[in-house]
Amino acid sequence: MQKATSVVEQIHTFFEPRSVAVVGASKKITKAGHVIFKNFADNKRRGIFKGELYPVNPHESYILAFKCYSSLKEVIGDVELVVVVVPAEEVPQIMQEAANKHAKAAVIVSGGFGEIGNHQLEDEVKAIAKKAGIRILGPNCLGVYDSSTGVDMLFLPETRVLTTGEEVVATPRPRIGPIAVVTQSGAFGVAVLDYMAGEEIGLSKFVSFGNKIDVQEPEILEYLLHDSQTRVVLLYAESISAGREFMEVAREVTKCKPIVALKSGKTEAGARAALSHTGAIAGSDKIYDSVFLQSGVIRVRDTEELLDASEALAFQPPAAGNNIAIVTAAGGPAIMAADECESRGVNIKRFSDETQQKFEQLKKEEKIPSFATNYNPLDLTGSVTSEMFELGTRILLEDPEIYGVMVFGLHHSPALQEDYVDRVANLSKNYLKPVLACDIGETEMAAYIRGRFDKLGVPSFSSPEDTARAMAALVHYGLYLKKNGYYEDYIEQFKQKVRT
Amino acid sequence: MQKATSVVEQIHTFFEPRSVAVVGASKKITKAGHVIFKNFADNKRRGIFKGELYPVNPHESYILAFKCYSSLKEVIGDVELVVVVVPAEEVPQIMQEAANKHAKAAVIVSGGFGEIGNHQLEDEVKAIAKKAGIRILGPNCLGVYDSSTGVDMLFLPETRVLTTGEEVVATPRPRIGPIAVVTQSGAFGVAVLDYMAGEEIGLSKFVSFGNKIDVQEPEILEYLLHDSQTRVVLLYAESISAGREFMEVAREVTKCKPIVALKSGKTEAGARAALSHTGAIAGSDKIYDSVFLQSGVIRVRDTEELLDASEALAFQPPAAGNNIAIVTAAGGPAIMAADECESRGVNIKRFSDETQQKFEQLKKEEKIPSFATNYNPLDLTGSVTSEMFELGTRILLEDPEIYGVMVFGLHHSPALQEDYVDRVANLSKNYLKPVLACDIGETEMAAYIRGRFDKLGVPSFSSPEDTARAMAALVHYGLYLKKNGYYEDYIEQFKQKVRT
Repeated sequence: MQKATSVVEQIHTFFEPRSVAVVGASKKITKAGHVIFKNFADNKRRGIFKGELYPVNPHESYILAFKCYSSLKEVIGDVELVVVVVPAEEVPQIMQEAANKHAKAAVIVSGGFGEIGNHQLEDEVKAIAKKAGIRILGPNCLGVYDSSTGVDMLFLPETRVLTTGEEVVATPRPRIGPIAVVTQSGAFGVAVLDYMAGEEIGLSKFVSFGNKIDVQEPEILEYLLHDSQTRVVLLYAESISAGREFMEVAREVTKCKPIVALKSGKTEAGARAALSHTGAIAGSDKIYDSVFLQSGVIRVRDTEELLDASEALAFQPPAAGNNIAIVTAAGGPAIMAADECESRGVNIKRFSDETQQKFEQLKKEEKIPSFATNYNPLDLTGSVTSEMFELGTRILLEDPEIYGVMVFGLHHSPALQEDYVDRVANLSKNYLKPVLACDIGETEMAAYIRGRFDKLGVPSFSSPEDTARAMAALVHYGLYLKKNGYYEDYIEQFKQKVRT
Repeated sequence: MQKATSVVEQIHTFFEPRSVAVVGASKKITKAGHVIFKNFADNKRRGIFKGELYPVNPHESYILAFKCYSSLKEVIGDVELVVVVVPAEEVPQIMQEAANKHAKAAVIVSGGFGEIGNHQLEDEVKAIAKKAGIRILGPNCLGVYDSSTGVDMLFLPETRVLTTGEEVVATPRPRIGPIAVVTQSGAFGVAVLDYMAGEEIGLSKFVSFGNKIDVQEPEILEYLLHDSQTRVVLLYAESISAGREFMEVAREVTKCKPIVALKSGKTEAGARAALSHTGAIAGSDKIYDSVFLQSGVIRVRDTEELLDASEALAFQPPAAGNNIAIVTAAGGPAIMAADECESRGVNIKRFSDETQQKFEQLKKEEKIPSFATNYNPLDLTGSVTSEMFELGTRILLEDPEIYGVMVFGLHHSPALQEDYVDRVANLSKNYLKPVLACDIGETEMAAYIRGRFDKLGVPSFSSPEDTARAMAALVHYGLYLKKNGYYEDYIEQFKQKVRT
């Protein structure tokens, strides 16, 4: 009988094991057991993975210069975590060996269980693990990736060689950063990693659940609540079976860390697809709406919004009230953003007389164009300069009735120098109000402007509506924190973690 | 009194004038009059712009080696089109000179009219033009860009020099292609051009209206109806004042060319922003819904959908019925797509028994994985190969109850070679059913796969929901054509123009 350990301690083994055995490690490059073992071996050589590492395979003596063991039993020393990459029917035996070895945790990467109707095998594995006190992630999953501890079970290599002989990045691992990715679908999970790497958004931890026969969302959320690296949780789910536990834990987490959730299987066709995917019964979509709402989870509608809202929440403070200002170099995009805000319940109120007068004064001083419109949006027109953007944004951030600002500085504006990005970003650091930016386009200057905003901590987006949706997440989360009395503590934490 | 000309002839002058005078042409690189004149001069030197070109400016003798005229009157020879880039108060006089010169059309780029309350000046200009039979585009607009005739009035240079001394693409001109862009907002218009250039989507014609004191949407649409290069019209509007005419013309256009429209100013805040932008009264949004629906215009909800739907309609046939199949390498993204389809009124029906049996047969023959699910989506799982994608897609395209296919071939799938793109694309050419593809991610392999699909005429998208929305446009347009008896003719045209 093992000594009782906390959930956090148990889950910690998946992310920072002192010793790992990869059962099914292989020399053959096409095998998942090769890629996973090589990830660990590479990270150990680089000094990132600091635990002991054991390949297990009865047919090999050495793998990548590591002595290979014919079974778990042969390994001399402790094995805290077992990564299982053998055919499904062999898994029960491996789990028994893991039990004998007093392993604490196992990640079963192998498929061929409940998802194809093989529930009996799943039950067998579960029974062994439960008796031995082994926590299981999976089966049928991608497992864990942790950029700081070097745990990397993604059996998809970072690069691939095309038939032309060229090597290209295929499954990149994002840099270390504030966003944790928790996903039922492994494929969608790696797609998110690819997106984050391309956008240079940092990752704290990645977990893919697969069939979730043991560890589920609530336990991972509890772990992430205590993980100092994670500031935002990005969650993809097709079903959440542990509903009550989920709600309890989510309520605790969202006091100090936003959870952004995409729940699919909303419609009849989607639910049928989900059923044949992981055997999950998607359940009434309205129940999920209610669960998320009550526990402060921000539910998003699609992939883009999931990524954008997570990024916004990771780098900007939530809004302390529901009224957002728009400052723009062009009318059209500002109208689209205003439309999207209103349709998401975010107010774009007409500026106060006092604020309008400040802009009128700037017109008199010829510091902004006389033909600028200043009701909200503040439209500085195509004649906008960097100085005007800075002046305008400062007045909006100073307005006590305005709780956040969206900056639409289209790079086409002839007199606008790129230093407006730095001016706006530096200015925004003096206020605890969210600032987001937008520039539209897919060629060099657009990418440069967005990249520069992102680097300076102001998330930027490539369409007005995306920007508005990200702001909606900041507003709705802020309102939740306010309503429940968590806002002050959250902002204090934000100041310490993001603004120092 | 000029001889009466048709609307098409009149509008044609904006796109392919035999002679152009740029009034307000300048040597100073920061001036709009410089950029516009240089665009024409460059295109004339390259042999793209074939008309006569005259700079008009009383203070210069030569501009870019072209003899400069002190006024329109001094120009020897005809001037069909006058581009006006002088301060607003000088415009009436220029218009009078244009009238004396028997000009057919004028683009008034200059701002300072109705958008800042200067309606009297606008009326004055209108009166002169009407009397002389001159058609006007603008004022306060970007005018026209036509990639094949070399007419380029965009006063935003293609590249910009950053403060670091590096030159980057800032306002790219897309390649020649099938999509016409018609926009009330110039700034949004060039943002669309930037997007199209980055995505390598071709442009036929670009028109920015500005204050629309004369030429409006209906006349441009009528012109585009007869323009052989244009296959799809992308329309951005904040208001459409010529409602009845719009509906009449749109009905004619959508018989053979889809119009994809983004109408902003939908909400109260958006409408207020629109009012202060172009003075447009946005009107009840439901009226627009009804106008678009009755005239077969596809109304989209945001910027991304506007671009995606336009691309899909330019390169794929509309669906002949409402039932779409999904074939995928991963469950999660397929569920999201199914959800989005259903919520947009697109059916993802369970496959017929016959089609299911074909997949069961493939399983028996070990040509697709035994654990693949085949109800719709067809989930070929992470074990998918190029051959499986080809086999699966063929069976779906052969099914008479299926009217289109979405292919989710995530590039992470270990055994999937990139030639699956070519197999699917080549296969799709044998059917008159829409095929769209999706790969998620922002690094090299994702971009490579999407680029390869696009090049082969299968539009590809970076999220499941984007793909579903683009397919929804193909379904709804197809149903409109079917209902009104236009489908057969449309498909015949599509075969001739796209598939040869």
